[in-house]
Amino acid sequence: MQSERVSEAVIRRLPRYYRHLLQLKADGVERISSGSLAQQMRLNASQVRQDFNCFGGFGQQGYGYKVDVLLAEIKNILSLNGKYKVVIVGAGNIGQALAHFEGFEKDGFSVVALFDVDEKLVGQEINGKPVLHVDKLDAYIRENGADIGVIAARRSAAQEIADRMAQAGIGGIWNFAPVDVVASVPVEQVHMSDSIICLSYKMAHKETAE
Amino acid sequence: MQSERVSEAVIRRLPRYYRHLLQLKADGVERISSGSLAQQMRLNASQVRQDFNCFGGFGQQGYGYKVDVLLAEIKNILSLNGKYKVVIVGAGNIGQALAHFEGFEKDGFSVVALFDVDEKLVGQEINGKPVLHVDKLDAYIRENGADIGVIAARRSAAQEIADRMAQAGIGGIWNFAPVDVVASVPVEQVHMSDSIICLSYKMAHKETAE
Repeated sequence: MQSERVSEAVIRRLPRYYRHLLQLKADGVERISSGSLAQQMRLNASQVRQDFNCFGGFGQQGYGYKVDVLLAEIKNILSLNGKYKVVIVGAGNIGQALAHFEGFEKDGFSVVALFDVDEKLVGQEINGKPVLHVDKLDAYIRENGADIGVIAARRSAAQEIADRMAQAGIGGIWNFAPVDVVASVPVEQVHMSDSIICLSYKMAHKETAE
Repeated sequence: MQSERVSEAVIRRLPRYYRHLLQLKADGVERISSGSLAQQMRLNASQVRQDFNCFGGFGQQGYGYKVDVLLAEIKNILSLNGKYKVVIVGAGNIGQALAHFEGFEKDGFSVVALFDVDEKLVGQEINGKPVLHVDKLDAYIRENGADIGVIAARRSAAQEIADRMAQAGIGGIWNFAPVDVVASVPVEQVHMSDSIICLSYKMAHKETAE
């Protein structure tokens, strides 16, 4: 693809385009202009065109983008055409919630195992997935070729888990522990508070979705 | 404050500025230029200045922003100086994880009660907070002046819960159900999948934290 680095802000908008285009396709919409897309998504049209230009522009003609072509392009950019094996370290509330979450499978993310230190949890199944002892994490990643490691463990354990995951050959880390971990592989840090803080802003400024 | 609507992208960056400035303050940094702030946060300097200009610019002189002044301004814009009473509907994994989450209290968000339909959960306490029957939700919000309603219930129940919350006078809704709810009050919709999709992008494009 392009050699120039795409900004974090553009990357963060890509899943929103993806979701919106999925919805348009489900609604039977075949074509959409950058202006309409922008309006529906509360962006501005030049922003949308700029974003798409980061990836070659998708060749909008005068009468708009073809929804299925645009969706396929964005799905491809997001690398959502394959399957990802996901392991979750920490089988507490967050780990269990993620193991039950219905929304991942359709995008190709399959939880294959959970790991914990708690002997009460080890040996059980959560949503049909085994809970293994965390000592087995490294070997499991190597032997099963796990792609994504989720850290749903406590703050103090997070960095060590990240190190072990990266060492064992994981492709990327999704970190829910409230501390930024560093790794030689891509990390997506979830900041739960950011979302409630945005809500606080919207409440103070009376912003409704309209 | 300003009458012009601030874009969603700017709003979403505000918690990141807030977090970063908290860290700078904790590290004893007293002043920072927009250039340094941008570099540390992987934004560009003109973006940072543009963002701050949405709120009057915070008067950067030639030698940068004062960290504590900037932090106070952003905290004020985000309306994080008060206390918010939070009720959680759905005492399953996500509800319980949120009731235990350590990161909210310091920003003024206090979980005061959870609600569920499950008779096994009703009457129990989670992290010291009572689990009440969801039938009591409306009266509880009215009588206790709850500010924020969290929807951690199943998809099919989400819109009805949102309607009841808004009717009872909630100030804002934080929705974890995988369906967009509509309401007359501000709603912050959590799309868990967006984050793992960004990770997928970063893995495909080999983007590490720096």
